[in-house]
Amino acid sequence: MKSEKELNEFLKSGAKVYMPGLTIDCVIFGYHQHQLKVLLGHFKGLDGFGLPGGYIKKTELLSAAAERILKERTGLDNLYLEQFYTFGDSSFRSKKVNIHPSIADTWLATRTFSIGYYALVEFSKVTLEPDFLIDHYEWRDVTAVPSLLFDHKDMVNKALEHLRVNLYHKPIGYSLLEKKFTLPEIQSLYETILDQKLDRRNFPKKLMSLGLIKDTHEVRKIGQHRSPKLYSFDRKNYNSALKEGIVLVF
Amino acid sequence: MKSEKELNEFLKSGAKVYMPGLTIDCVIFGYHQHQLKVLLGHFKGLDGFGLPGGYIKKTELLSAAAERILKERTGLDNLYLEQFYTFGDSSFRSKKVNIHPSIADTWLATRTFSIGYYALVEFSKVTLEPDFLIDHYEWRDVTAVPSLLFDHKDMVNKALEHLRVNLYHKPIGYSLLEKKFTLPEIQSLYETILDQKLDRRNFPKKLMSLGLIKDTHEVRKIGQHRSPKLYSFDRKNYNSALKEGIVLVF
Repeated sequence: MKSEKELNEFLKSGAKVYMPGLTIDCVIFGYHQHQLKVLLGHFKGLDGFGLPGGYIKKTELLSAAAERILKERTGLDNLYLEQFYTFGDSSFRSKKVNIHPSIADTWLATRTFSIGYYALVEFSKVTLEPDFLIDHYEWRDVTAVPSLLFDHKDMVNKALEHLRVNLYHKPIGYSLLEKKFTLPEIQSLYETILDQKLDRRNFPKKLMSLGLIKDTHEVRKIGQHRSPKLYSFDRKNYNSALKEGIVLVF
Repeated sequence: MKSEKELNEFLKSGAKVYMPGLTIDCVIFGYHQHQLKVLLGHFKGLDGFGLPGGYIKKTELLSAAAERILKERTGLDNLYLEQFYTFGDSSFRSKKVNIHPSIADTWLATRTFSIGYYALVEFSKVTLEPDFLIDHYEWRDVTAVPSLLFDHKDMVNKALEHLRVNLYHKPIGYSLLEKKFTLPEIQSLYETILDQKLDRRNFPKKLMSLGLIKDTHEVRKIGQHRSPKLYSFDRKNYNSALKEGIVLVF
């Protein structure tokens, strides 16, 4: 955990390292067994929840900054990470920021835009790292997000919109399901994110016909009369679908 | 057309009006009778083509800046305008910009990110306004875009990707077709953007079932044996689909 000293250093000399006026905020969606949650941080001294974020280093590429910030917060890398929108429209972003007395005369007190990224993680795998701005984190169900600081509630809503649209155009699931999974498991992942029921026949048929998943010819022994077939992702097709895009219709 | 004097004023005093380090670039797609083109500007002094763009005023909301810039360049407002991606990853964007000797010691010579917006217009309605950076414009077919300055070719590709995905989730056509149109006309619009053939039965059926278009009970007299039915958009359903999003499957 970062100390008071680090905070002071960041306020005093951050402008040498980071670009002013532009941040990255992360909407981190966590999936685990039929639940879709979003990661909220409690901001020190502000008594409210918001999204974890950070500044971009002067010499750092944008995508590298997003990966670094996410890694610093969740301990994870190689995540499904997507830039979705840049925010500069709320009244909060139309003027100089003054979110806290301690930053009033620092390099942080300037009009600041934020580039939104979302990630999708298996939340039982995440180790959260509070820092000098956030004292603790909480996972909240996407259907029960409270009021948030700044324009962060808009960010969550917009990210969810993008996640749902992207579901039709990019494969997901690789880091969210076990290596071998049943059809009900992958269907539940999609249904949870979309918040709607999908056809039990068309859904797997479509994934199979696109070549995204394949039969492993193994079963899982659940009980004497229940041993569902196990499937896995076809990595080659999955990766090319990630790159090329798909049109998925259930 | 803006003059040399205006350019000098912009270089000298722009930092009082505009935010440094962040621009908006516009990928303006033009549709007209089975053709999809993109608007390129020839940059003065650089001998190359790029996208029209501009800076954000210090007191201006982001979306207002995008609308203003587009209006200044094309003379149009109330356009289908979408933010699609923010660019900060190319080597050109990882360091201080030095695109032209005349800006070397000005407020423009700093590392600059760009927020990409795309618009879709009926290109026969557009009046182009060259300015102090661009000496003339050309419409180029999206399948024949030449090498562009900076990372603008990446921008065009990414915008086209987003436009195509968005076609499945938002209605389009309102400013691109006549008020009353035939089914082949609207189908050709979609086919041109997607660059693929769509089913002649499913396509109109889907638009009708979503309530996006409706039969006007009028026909167009083309010849003695050709008088196709005319359709129009249902504005109420169209606007709510714009807001809520749709899942369109042909």
